[in-house]
Amino acid sequence: MPVMLILGSSSDKPIAEKAAKILDEFGVKYDLRVASAHRAPEMVKGIVEKSNADVFIGIAGLAAALPGVIASHTTKPVIGVPVGTKLDGLDALLSIMQMPPGVPVACVGIDRGENAALLAIEILALKDAKLAAKLAGHRKGMARKVGEQDKELRK
Amino acid sequence: MPVMLILGSSSDKPIAEKAAKILDEFGVKYDLRVASAHRAPEMVKGIVEKSNADVFIGIAGLAAALPGVIASHTTKPVIGVPVGTKLDGLDALLSIMQMPPGVPVACVGIDRGENAALLAIEILALKDAKLAAKLAGHRKGMARKVGEQDKELRK
Amino acid sequence: MPVMLILGSSSDKPIAEKAAKILDEFGVKYDLRVASAHRAPEMVKGIVEKSNADVFIGIAGLAAALPGVIASHTTKPVIGVPVGTKLDGLDALLSIMQMPPGVPVACVGIDRGENAALLAIEILALKDAKLAAKLAGHRKGMARKVGEQDKELRK
Amino acid sequence: MPVMLILGSSSDKPIAEKAAKILDEFGVKYDLRVASAHRAPEMVKGIVEKSNADVFIGIAGLAAALPGVIASHTTKPVIGVPVGTKLDGLDALLSIMQMPPGVPVACVGIDRGENAALLAIEILALKDAKLAAKLAGHRKGMARKVGEQDKELRK
Amino acid sequence: MPVMLILGSSSDKPIAEKAAKILDEFGVKYDLRVASAHRAPEMVKGIVEKSNADVFIGIAGLAAALPGVIASHTTKPVIGVPVGTKLDGLDALLSIMQMPPGVPVACVGIDRGENAALLAIEILALKDAKLAAKLAGHRKGMARKVGEQDKELRK
Amino acid sequence: MPVMLILGSSSDKPIAEKAAKILDEFGVKYDLRVASAHRAPEMVKGIVEKSNADVFIGIAGLAAALPGVIASHTTKPVIGVPVGTKLDGLDALLSIMQMPPGVPVACVGIDRGENAALLAIEILALKDAKLAAKLAGHRKGMARKVGEQDKELRK
Amino acid sequence: MPVMLILGSSSDKPIAEKAAKILDEFGVKYDLRVASAHRAPEMVKGIVEKSNADVFIGIAGLAAALPGVIASHTTKPVIGVPVGTKLDGLDALLSIMQMPPGVPVACVGIDRGENAALLAIEILALKDAKLAAKLAGHRKGMARKVGEQDKELRK
Amino acid sequence: MPVMLILGSSSDKPIAEKAAKILDEFGVKYDLRVASAHRAPEMVKGIVEKSNADVFIGIAGLAAALPGVIASHTTKPVIGVPVGTKLDGLDALLSIMQMPPGVPVACVGIDRGENAALLAIEILALKDAKLAAKLAGHRKGMARKVGEQDKELRK
Repeated sequence: MPVMLILGSSSDKPIAEKAAKILDEFGVKYDLRVASAHRAPEMVKGIVEKSNADVFIGIAGLAAALPGVIASHTTKPVIGVPVGTKLDGLDALLSIMQMPPGVPVACVGIDRGENAALLAIEILALKDAKLAAKLAGHRKGMARKVGEQDKELRK
Repeated sequence: MPVMLILGSSSDKPIAEKAAKILDEFGVKYDLRVASAHRAPEMVKGIVEKSNADVFIGIAGLAAALPGVIASHTTKPVIGVPVGTKLDGLDALLSIMQMPPGVPVACVGIDRGENAALLAIEILALKDAKLAAKLAGHRKGMARKVGEQDKELRK
Repeated sequence: MPVMLILGSSSDKPIAEKAAKILDEFGVKYDLRVASAHRAPEMVKGIVEKSNADVFIGIAGLAAALPGVIASHTTKPVIGVPVGTKLDGLDALLSIMQMPPGVPVACVGIDRGENAALLAIEILALKDAKLAAKLAGHRKGMARKVGEQDKELRK
Repeated sequence: MPVMLILGSSSDKPIAEKAAKILDEFGVKYDLRVASAHRAPEMVKGIVEKSNADVFIGIAGLAAALPGVIASHTTKPVIGVPVGTKLDGLDALLSIMQMPPGVPVACVGIDRGENAALLAIEILALKDAKLAAKLAGHRKGMARKVGEQDKELRK
Repeated sequence: MPVMLILGSSSDKPIAEKAAKILDEFGVKYDLRVASAHRAPEMVKGIVEKSNADVFIGIAGLAAALPGVIASHTTKPVIGVPVGTKLDGLDALLSIMQMPPGVPVACVGIDRGENAALLAIEILALKDAKLAAKLAGHRKGMARKVGEQDKELRK
Repeated sequence: MPVMLILGSSSDKPIAEKAAKILDEFGVKYDLRVASAHRAPEMVKGIVEKSNADVFIGIAGLAAALPGVIASHTTKPVIGVPVGTKLDGLDALLSIMQMPPGVPVACVGIDRGENAALLAIEILALKDAKLAAKLAGHRKGMARKVGEQDKELRK
Repeated sequence: MPVMLILGSSSDKPIAEKAAKILDEFGVKYDLRVASAHRAPEMVKGIVEKSNADVFIGIAGLAAALPGVIASHTTKPVIGVPVGTKLDGLDALLSIMQMPPGVPVACVGIDRGENAALLAIEILALKDAKLAAKLAGHRKGMARKVGEQDKELRK
Repeated sequence: MPVMLILGSSSDKPIAEKAAKILDEFGVKYDLRVASAHRAPEMVKGIVEKSNADVFIGIAGLAAALPGVIASHTTKPVIGVPVGTKLDGLDALLSIMQMPPGVPVACVGIDRGENAALLAIEILALKDAKLAAKLAGHRKGMARKVGEQDKELRK
């Protein structure tokens, strides 16, 4: 599977579903796993090392170590999605984004599962012209929808 | 050039140099440009649209709109580096990371130019086995350096 | 139309309605548009460049680039309204307010559509004595209402 | 004088000088006063009520009440500049920006005296075509400087 | 009346009622007024200057200038109560607490009307032995209630 | 002595000196003590219980429990001064200001020793007409100084 | 009893129950008390000094002085649990965690009563091999549950 | 060795030295290692699993995953010390403290290496009466020093 989606807890499922919906829409296959960096570290390591995914997405809240721990086991691109629970997600955001020099994580916005998926697709599209075309179409579609919202409002 | 590095202002140069150093080390070619989302929006658009880069890196401080504006003109992966000036970089961080659904930016840590470069390389390595091998070597080298720091400290 | 109101998304409508209500009350005409800085950048540019408005109001949440992007396409006064979603609006607030030197945006309070409208009217009133008189009346009316609240409470 | 610049304390002078420099550059005349909302409230009121300025700029740090207090005495546009001292200016920023409904203040970025001046000029330019032309020239000059920085960096 | 309670808006009434309840309990007389620092500055000044209160309490949210403005018109002790609306009250808190040198305001906790009243009573009790005795009794009563909660829980 | 000044550590001395300077200027006598709520709790209790001060001032940084602990041992007014060390003083500020219902502390601004002293004097002046007169004079002096700064700047 | 659980108020009971549930599960005995650092300081001192507990847990919100005050009366390990009320618990968190040098408190996450209990058990397990074995089993159980969540999701 | 001190990077050495100094003073033996959760995850695992330490101390800045990763490999007590770099340490603080339910970390204050050591000693002292006595002496010594600072200041 080209994308590996890992949730820190099954409570992060609503955010993962936003990502899954986009991946389904683009026809990009993915694995969906639950594995906690703190409660099941060996499992995270195992999943990452056995996977042949091109892109990893880690979704986690609180002291969200999961994306960084995934990144510690691979040199494939890792995308992190901070989940907002306490402190509106400021804790997860900083835990994911402030990685030390040498081990990058690509952080997207709080609860932004759909953007994690789109970023993964943008990465995969670099070697898949059909996907790139779909992305271009998707972007145009968004602009069109903005135009429709605009028309609607101007009435 | 596979990577396009855009600075919001020439004052962001020290952060860009961290990125450039890593890209040079890996032998990845890049363009280095200054173009402000707010003071020269047409220039940003022109650079992005004319570029055939696979990955864009936007480096900016304050209300750091640059990475998001780059992302609005392309469906290639865009990496954002928040530069810490006022408010320790909290302003730039949120301006880059909190993108709306549909237009992702991959945000790395404050002033983390080197991680932006490594993330770009991880993305490029998906279709370049030599680069992937170099990345694996680089990662091992880091672990080795940690080991050396450890030995040094234990004396 | 002397005022151009642009929303980053149709979900910002409740805040725009606060502004619209004040503009209606003062008899100031306005255009009301939806146009996203990130999803439809050309549309924003088009709206701004074709408009002959004296004052622009940009209403947006998250990494609220819209007011700054409007300002990048005009030297007319641009007012920004941060919309509070995640992080209570701290993200939108800093994304709007912390503009770089050279391209100002006039930021009002979180969700404060009515103040954006009043600020626009204050600006227009500099060349419209009737509007200035209405403003003075409105201000007196507010003081009177405070007085009524005071009487009510003292009972 | 078309612009009235009021400082909360003589320690805010470096920020006021950024504003003064821009106003001088555009040939816009201004008064420069020190008057504290907390230590000399009558003086603030007197200055505002006697002034025939079109635009007021209030520059203050800490619990920066000055711009709001100026706005309470006039219906002319009031621009506030938060000065960063303790807490990196977060205190001044919120004290200026979070005005209640009915009394707007146009808040610019922390220590951004130059943008307060430019915003004032944008407002004045609505009834002064020469000023509007100068603004357009200034904006083009900034884009040109970005271009020069770009050339310099590409060498 | 020994205490003057001023609300920035009638929406702050629930917080004022917490204060009023304590003052009633201690038999301390007070005036209860609504007067906005931004919408009715003359009224605030008038109330403060005509009052012979020993202690002032200002209750306000957002850019809560009211307590500081009261303090600018008197050298009697002024207590400020930040009301939590947007940003959980961080805006009101900093607007009240970060007063410049020379004009103190005694800030109590967010929405803590009861503590404002108790602080006022502590101040008045310095010249009223009966009040001081009541305060001592009230404090003992609180310790007793903690003891009762403790017994209840240990069952 | 009418005022008891307690420092959490001798490192808080520069802030205490700002308070002492004002008290000296007004001829108000005070005790100056060091006593830590965490390292010497019995000492704090002893000082507070043996003191016949009318007003207590607690100066502390970090998890600044000192003012609250003083308040737990007396029903005299307690003023707290947060000292800014880490986190710009946000830690001390919240530790002092967010007291539970029933035990008030009067919090002044970060490092604002002078305002703690002035607040104490305002409280003492309620039963000391001479002190009240001095306060009025001091306030007028401040307004005069603002006027002088204003004249200086206008040259 | 090996563990002494102290709540700052009976309103903190839901958080204490999370701790009690874990302690019951591990068969570790505990006392459960309510005692306020600010409203009943002598009671806190009495409870701590009379207790022969090995570990203390203090649960409190707002200016959460309780854990630090417990620590000031004992050299046994003290665990603090910040309770989130206003400001999402940022106030309690900093009030507990930022203890001065010399008097440590072990701070766990906001509302994390269960982790306070587990930390206490980890400490007690150092001299209780059976408890250590139970802890190892509990940890394995958690990993197993993550595995089950994973299976569930993969369906 | 009863204590295992792990640094996330050799740049955290000054904070580790504060801990080492206290451990030396109490005659408690410790290992001092450098091992990065992100750059050398296997090394962290190896150190933790091979160690027979009773208490672990993890010292790290930024997205400080180290203490949590240590805790994921052991059920011995783990103490975390957030190191303040960017954002004054707010990032490290939240990354360490906001652990998910089930895997506790005992977080001490920012840069508070000495308190991490004291907390470790308090834990070890539960089964070492001599250490307990030393701790009591150390605490008394601190109170004495406060007393000396007090005398010094009162002169």
